[in-house]
Amino acid sequence: MSETVTTTLNDVDIGSVVSLVEKVQQEPDVAATKWNAEVKWKGGFRSEAQIRDFVTARSDEPDQLGGTNTGPNPVEQVLGALGNCLAVGYAANATVAGITISDLTINVEGDLDLHTFLGLTEGHAGFGNISVKVKLDSDASPEALQALHDKVISTSPVGHTLNRAVPVDIQLT
Amino acid sequence: MSETVTTTLNDVDIGSVVSLVEKVQQEPDVAATKWNAEVKWKGGFRSEAQIRDFVTARSDEPDQLGGTNTGPNPVEQVLGALGNCLAVGYAANATVAGITISDLTINVEGDLDLHTFLGLTEGHAGFGNISVKVKLDSDASPEALQALHDKVISTSPVGHTLNRAVPVDIQLT
Repeated sequence: MSETVTTTLNDVDIGSVVSLVEKVQQEPDVAATKWNAEVKWKGGFRSEAQIRDFVTARSDEPDQLGGTNTGPNPVEQVLGALGNCLAVGYAANATVAGITISDLTINVEGDLDLHTFLGLTEGHAGFGNISVKVKLDSDASPEALQALHDKVISTSPVGHTLNRAVPVDIQLT
Repeated sequence: MSETVTTTLNDVDIGSVVSLVEKVQQEPDVAATKWNAEVKWKGGFRSEAQIRDFVTARSDEPDQLGGTNTGPNPVEQVLGALGNCLAVGYAANATVAGITISDLTINVEGDLDLHTFLGLTEGHAGFGNISVKVKLDSDASPEALQALHDKVISTSPVGHTLNRAVPVDIQLT
């Protein structure tokens, strides 16, 4: 039995990724990327992030936290970003491995103690821990799926940004 | 001269925040919060995060990274979340301090080396560093603004989530 490797497995244009890999191998500096967001405060706890020329999304806090609940709050956005990043990782690495993904749903949950945010204690204001459940439907073997999973975890930009300490420099200009 | 402290300074409902602080002081367990996002893969590098009942936003990768460029990518979403979180921090703490914010724009930039994401090296796939420039227009004194800034940095949930190592557990179910 022969397999036909196409560029449309999982609807992923893997050719673009392969081209980028080859380009980075020839010119390592191509891998040094910069990303940006510009946030404008809209009054209260509302704000909007402009990313390239995409439509902005409203950020707000729930009523209980003093907001007007017109959008997900920033810590929820972080959890969404992690899930989105893992989805890219599964899609990319499954395609490279010839694995077809039938369906993929990722549940992300984070525990956050508000004491520091509310000024009641000093210390860690962020997530205490983040827990992710990945539901991946595929005909691939359990071994192939475990190898895929391990690959995704070892290469996830948002996963690593969260589980490692990243220097964050914040200047009032 | 007497100052009238209102609940509408900066359009922030600071009363709700004060009520929450008092509640947490009486029942510390109230501060233990959980947050969630459910991400559904949409084919290719596209996915959507469902947060509570808010409208979902499209996540994708740029063409150069093999995507179809229909939305911000996950690492950009993290930068947006950081800016949104800092906006809440400035609005909340300015209001507590009686500082009026005229305008607030936050530029967030992150450096990310793609080698690990592309499978060319092992190691850190996430942001190498994140740099934030805050433009805050206010009539408050430079000293008051610096104190506000220091308070925001010491209490930012997303800021601390990024600049500290948070345990991230990812299970294939």
